Amino acid sequence: MSSEHTARLLIHCQDQAGIVQAVSGFLFHSGANITSLDQYTTEAVGGDYFMRVEFVLPQLPQQLDSLTDNFTRNVAERYQMNWRLSLVQERKKIALLVSKHDHALMELLWRHARGQLPCDIACVISNHEDLRHAVEHFDIPFHVVKVQADTKAAAEAQINEWVADCDVLVLARYMQILSAEFTEQWAMKIINIHHSFLPAFVGADPYRQAYEKGVKLIGATAHYVTADLDQGPIIEQDVKRVDHRYTVTELRQLGAEVERQVLARAVLWHVEDRIIVFGNKTVVFE
Amino acid sequence: MSSEHTARLLIHCQDQAGIVQAVSGFLFHSGANITSLDQYTTEAVGGDYFMRVEFVLPQLPQQLDSLTDNFTRNVAERYQMNWRLSLVQERKKIALLVSKHDHALMELLWRHARGQLPCDIACVISNHEDLRHAVEHFDIPFHVVKVQADTKAAAEAQINEWVADCDVLVLARYMQILSAEFTEQWAMKIINIHHSFLPAFVGADPYRQAYEKGVKLIGATAHYVTADLDQGPIIEQDVKRVDHRYTVTELRQLGAEVERQVLARAVLWHVEDRIIVFGNKTVVFE
Amino acid sequence: MSSEHTARLLIHCQDQAGIVQAVSGFLFHSGANITSLDQYTTEAVGGDYFMRVEFVLPQLPQQLDSLTDNFTRNVAERYQMNWRLSLVQERKKIALLVSKHDHALMELLWRHARGQLPCDIACVISNHEDLRHAVEHFDIPFHVVKVQADTKAAAEAQINEWVADCDVLVLARYMQILSAEFTEQWAMKIINIHHSFLPAFVGADPYRQAYEKGVKLIGATAHYVTADLDQGPIIEQDVKRVDHRYTVTELRQLGAEVERQVLARAVLWHVEDRIIVFGNKTVVFE
Amino acid sequence: MSSEHTARLLIHCQDQAGIVQAVSGFLFHSGANITSLDQYTTEAVGGDYFMRVEFVLPQLPQQLDSLTDNFTRNVAERYQMNWRLSLVQERKKIALLVSKHDHALMELLWRHARGQLPCDIACVISNHEDLRHAVEHFDIPFHVVKVQADTKAAAEAQINEWVADCDVLVLARYMQILSAEFTEQWAMKIINIHHSFLPAFVGADPYRQAYEKGVKLIGATAHYVTADLDQGPIIEQDVKRVDHRYTVTELRQLGAEVERQVLARAVLWHVEDRIIVFGNKTVVFE
Repeated sequence: MSSEHTARLLIHCQDQAGIVQAVSGFLFHSGANITSLDQYTTEAVGGDYFMRVEFVLPQLPQQLDSLTDNFTRNVAERYQMNWRLSLVQERKKIALLVSKHDHALMELLWRHARGQLPCDIACVISNHEDLRHAVEHFDIPFHVVKVQADTKAAAEAQINEWVADCDVLVLARYMQILSAEFTEQWAMKIINIHHSFLPAFVGADPYRQAYEKGVKLIGATAHYVTADLDQGPIIEQDVKRVDHRYTVTELRQLGAEVERQVLARAVLWHVEDRIIVFGNKTVVFE
Repeated sequence: MSSEHTARLLIHCQDQAGIVQAVSGFLFHSGANITSLDQYTTEAVGGDYFMRVEFVLPQLPQQLDSLTDNFTRNVAERYQMNWRLSLVQERKKIALLVSKHDHALMELLWRHARGQLPCDIACVISNHEDLRHAVEHFDIPFHVVKVQADTKAAAEAQINEWVADCDVLVLARYMQILSAEFTEQWAMKIINIHHSFLPAFVGADPYRQAYEKGVKLIGATAHYVTADLDQGPIIEQDVKRVDHRYTVTELRQLGAEVERQVLARAVLWHVEDRIIVFGNKTVVFE
Repeated sequence: MSSEHTARLLIHCQDQAGIVQAVSGFLFHSGANITSLDQYTTEAVGGDYFMRVEFVLPQLPQQLDSLTDNFTRNVAERYQMNWRLSLVQERKKIALLVSKHDHALMELLWRHARGQLPCDIACVISNHEDLRHAVEHFDIPFHVVKVQADTKAAAEAQINEWVADCDVLVLARYMQILSAEFTEQWAMKIINIHHSFLPAFVGADPYRQAYEKGVKLIGATAHYVTADLDQGPIIEQDVKRVDHRYTVTELRQLGAEVERQVLARAVLWHVEDRIIVFGNKTVVFE
Repeated sequence: MSSEHTARLLIHCQDQAGIVQAVSGFLFHSGANITSLDQYTTEAVGGDYFMRVEFVLPQLPQQLDSLTDNFTRNVAERYQMNWRLSLVQERKKIALLVSKHDHALMELLWRHARGQLPCDIACVISNHEDLRHAVEHFDIPFHVVKVQADTKAAAEAQINEWVADCDVLVLARYMQILSAEFTEQWAMKIINIHHSFLPAFVGADPYRQAYEKGVKLIGATAHYVTADLDQGPIIEQDVKRVDHRYTVTELRQLGAEVERQVLARAVLWHVEDRIIVFGNKTVVFE
């Protein structure tokens, strides 16, 4: 069954008896076949309820509107659900922002080129020219916008123009702090890779901080960006073992491997509709 | 909601449209609240279907029989399901078999004593006296049966007597090969810990084999026991990094840590009804 | 060659040309055979130099004093070394402090009983009676001293009496804060296990902090205790992967596994003279 | 101190008293400063001895010949050493062989471009045209030679011509079996990445074998190539956790990540002279 008939439903509501039955019953009577179903409740009774369903419906994409209408009336309103329905074939559009470090960017471009990142990459935006050649090799537009204290507003306006039709922005080691206005406008739609195991080592130069603290593991954290620097909901983290022999430079090199993997997983989960944000935390249906 | 009202349903059948709806609808109309649901299909269409549901039903355990009857008639027969329904409060009874190495055994006794292994340990059986003191400290009966080529049948008969009311046997480094009759009688009810990353290093002294091969990781494998030595369905595996400096003795020591963890996870998953065997493989709903 | 003839030399000095030659030449001319040698320099030129040598000398332990004298005069003074020489057969004496959680304590007692922790355990000290039975099963003295705000000084005096001939104290989840006087008296001789990946989540109830932050890995840190709570030199760290499904209780359970392993490794390295503290960091020659 | 004055010495001989002293004394009296020293002995007494020393000598590279002569006469002959001395600035020349899968190749080209793989890549050789564009983007020559049963000898002759001045060949998923003549000619100078945790799953399509066996971890192995397929000395291995949900395709994708990392580490260690082959095993001084 090709992906054109496949859709995903993400749901968040108060936990009540009968939700699984209501959703699966609705889909069954609509002619859909559930191919994947995950759910999670924060408490045994009366907590928050989260669900992700993937299903195949031969009448998709034509009957998307009627399916949506029916689901709204017959299920979502009854349970007061926050929900969204996505067609797998409607690939998300993403833009990548980067400064000079290429490792996280290259990992994404590379996986995308190999068909392992099911989304469309609209463009790469940087505040430096350095990576133009590397990006254009993948036939992806590369835009440069310089950012300085007094030009940040204009730069962000320019970025907003370039990414106007994008669904998500990925900061693949973009070393500029985005304004609160910008991050609010793109709330839970900007993914950043921070080069430490948050909440350890927020702020600048975390590998130097890690070196000075003498930690025995270094890590990376992919998270949604909020106005609070390095404090947004964590999507994914990983670490590697180090010892006293590692210089700051070597920590950075090893850390770059972790950053690549962690960011790539986070972006994949986002474009596959596997993440629901809940307060300052994420539910990830891997 | 206390565990006395909680039950688990494990299902295996041919994949068809409507199974989730049928099961969740049945539970909803029976007054149950689904607290956990996992499913897996081997193929997008027409494969094997597996499901694990945990639910709370205030009328349990009293209405277990009627629930079972109704499920059989209204759901299971229609979809030709292999299934089983377990009450969480009916803890499984397990027996542990061991020879002289105590690490895997101690890990299980210890977790059990701490309330982390929800089952009843009926007894520990060994072909040596060595571990009597360690076991009896936990107030668990310790039986010894010597095994020699010509006494194996009698020994297994004796074991069968001791474990007559047990649900599962755990070989926590039991160094005797069980007869084909015995393993068939207890099919998919004996869990063994093999001290290598199977299928590498089947047979005797896998740490020596690993040493001689010069592998850079050593591992352990928990699996169900079949008549084919070291070939039964794998439940869990893990590894640790080693290098050329490790002697065979050190590989054994480090490996013992992996064995303890891997076996403990496998036994936990079994007693929590998280495993469905399918051909020579396992579906584990963690 | 039995361990009675084996010794370990730990050295820290300014890096200069010829140190390896001086030490290895001295040992060779003293009749010793080097069985293990590790070194580390903080900078390519002119940094701090660290060395660990294990050697066998048939005249040990009898000639320990003359060896020490000669090394002092002929090598150590010339290079202004901080150093210590230990006989492997002179096992370190350790005391374990614990409150109510038994997992870290049991791991140490268990490894010790199995011959995997080459030291003598003088006693276990607790501020609660709870673990007496578990400890005395290992034939190790168990002392209880209640600690309250106004009795802390007296309690520490009592502890000091019990551990007077000990080389190192291990806090295996001891939930009392030691006074600055006490930690200074035992500087770099108290090992604590903190139940988080430091420097994340210092202070109380780190698993709850981790839960509220929504991290995707939880960890544990073994460190030397200083007057600055949770800030002493880190010896070892490790983590385990978690997801949104883990309750605080489950984080604690999984975390307990990490704590056990991390503390056991740290104590082993300490008693095998593998750790040199350097500022607020450790050099660990694994 | 720049790398032009830095050299590495690898030694293998019978263990005897005084080797460290002899080597470090020789280097000291030659005016060298040891910056790194690792050693390993297979037995406490009388085994095989291995050593890796990195040192800085201001008179290098000019005095390389006299240093070599002196070392031979004064140290190596006395201890009957197998040894080699390499200047760090004389970067090794490597050639990469690949078929159609690009992931392992790209990882190497990418690290090389970023300065993380200190060697010269002479060329990439393939039996397919597919990866020409990707390789030439890095300004590295790309050669294609078709291989069929009856043309294998000619193809290998052609390859030999292209790689005549290379020090090591890396099979980055090259799907042709090299002849015994070829592998003997390049003994311990061909590194292959096998897509399983050897010795499990030798031979073709290991991910399918892993799928059918139902293993819970998949891995990759970098090893030197010998005439015995998939049996040469193991350099490095790693694994990733999987479960029953992974299709063969997904195992391949996840496995590709492990392959990339494992091969990159093995090649790095080889070009940094960190590996000594000993029988069918490797000593790796990380």
